Amino acid sequence: MELWFTEKQTDNFGITARIKRTLHTEQTEFQKLDMVETEEFGNMLILDGMVMTTQKDEFVYHEMVAHVPLFTHPHPENVLVVGGGDGGVIREVLKHPSVKKATLVEIDGKVIEYSKKYLPEIAGQLDDPRVEVKVDDGFMHIAQSENEYDVIMVDSTEPVGPAVNLFTKGFYAGIAKALKEDGIFVAQTDNPWFKADLIRTVQRDVREIFPITRLYIANIPTYPSGMWTFTLGSKKYDPLEVSDDRFHDIETKYYTKQLHKACFVLPKFVEDLVK
Amino acid sequence: MELWFTEKQTDNFGITARIKRTLHTEQTEFQKLDMVETEEFGNMLILDGMVMTTQKDEFVYHEMVAHVPLFTHPHPENVLVVGGGDGGVIREVLKHPSVKKATLVEIDGKVIEYSKKYLPEIAGQLDDPRVEVKVDDGFMHIAQSENEYDVIMVDSTEPVGPAVNLFTKGFYAGIAKALKEDGIFVAQTDNPWFKADLIRTVQRDVREIFPITRLYIANIPTYPSGMWTFTLGSKKYDPLEVSDDRFHDIETKYYTKQLHKACFVLPKFVEDLVK
Repeated sequence: MELWFTEKQTDNFGITARIKRTLHTEQTEFQKLDMVETEEFGNMLILDGMVMTTQKDEFVYHEMVAHVPLFTHPHPENVLVVGGGDGGVIREVLKHPSVKKATLVEIDGKVIEYSKKYLPEIAGQLDDPRVEVKVDDGFMHIAQSENEYDVIMVDSTEPVGPAVNLFTKGFYAGIAKALKEDGIFVAQTDNPWFKADLIRTVQRDVREIFPITRLYIANIPTYPSGMWTFTLGSKKYDPLEVSDDRFHDIETKYYTKQLHKACFVLPKFVEDLVK
Repeated sequence: MELWFTEKQTDNFGITARIKRTLHTEQTEFQKLDMVETEEFGNMLILDGMVMTTQKDEFVYHEMVAHVPLFTHPHPENVLVVGGGDGGVIREVLKHPSVKKATLVEIDGKVIEYSKKYLPEIAGQLDDPRVEVKVDDGFMHIAQSENEYDVIMVDSTEPVGPAVNLFTKGFYAGIAKALKEDGIFVAQTDNPWFKADLIRTVQRDVREIFPITRLYIANIPTYPSGMWTFTLGSKKYDPLEVSDDRFHDIETKYYTKQLHKACFVLPKFVEDLVK
């Protein structure tokens, strides 16, 4: 028998991956969680039918969420990750020696549990002493925080299910409040081929709150269109003006200090989206 | 009935697109040719089961093949496109007023015929008076040319079927001979996620022939992994050293003069491939 998992990324287009076996499947309190072993991409975490991460290509997303803001901030000490229960962003955050504390607020404890079990290279750092893991609502956590974090990363699913609140202007305003006076935040904001309106809306909302708002891009083969965007909002530091001596050596497979700036150079049709 | 076309981009991974209808299907002298109307990407040309181009995302590939070498060369007049029977590269080449002649050598006349019929926005410039269309073997055409072209673009299928010869060191040597003393060539060289060995081999071969060899990247959602590479070989001009006054205004949807340089900034794992 051939087993194939197909994600319809739009009503009319999708990706399909050959599956060796299903490792776990469960309806959690918040979403449908599937962990499968694929031939091409290794173990794959799927939430509500959408690929969240895979062993083969996870490094792109996790490195690009983490290192762009962390190298933009001159001395990040206190970092918050909203969502990101697979632990990949936390793993990258911990590569920065200035970071004293990294807090993960993931709404669905099952994502953490099964990532630790089936994606150990990704989730393995969640037990690091610098990390605090809270199984809680990220929106509420943000609402209750003030002048606390140097960098906040929003590693959410797409704006369906439990992540709907994480794409609202109220949430971005809360993030601004939760950040220190020179804080930076970044959020994944889907792709420009199928979700142009979402990117346009988020850019507009974030721009009303943060004086420095930028969009950057990375290639993620298992995400819709392969072209993923991240929206960065910053109170003080511009990612495009980071001086070369800011960068210290860390081990990466995607991010480089040259790419730190090149990833902000947008194709014309994406540039037009965020004008 | 729901009709879906699935391309297995590897043995274990693929894309799937909902089809409104099949416009044409034929076994030509060289390959299986299918033209379908998709819901998501408009009309789509498929050769031997592989997506060649679609109305929605074709601009990325065609702009990036053409404008990077044409803006690198200070005064391109005589241009050759090998393959590219859909006409998209030719359309972009003609945006450069310095170009006096553009020759298309496509081995399969049926590709030209059905592109003109079903992809008129792409193939429409093939009747321009500056264009000469030859239905011929590109490998042979190159072998018979000497000191003739300013820029040669290789717009081939993947190295299967009629395109096998177009990925050999002998072909690159022939291209060097067919180019003038300051000529530039570019070829599509597949993706680094599934075809790392191909990229490594082509880079090595081209580097032995051209003093300036570079790899650049563009995002093409209907191509494997969404991340496409192009290998550029140049006898004299470096695409990274193009001065800003070289760029003139042309209408594009992907290429910009900023991207002209940023597209050469590679993710770490791709950088390692071409070292």
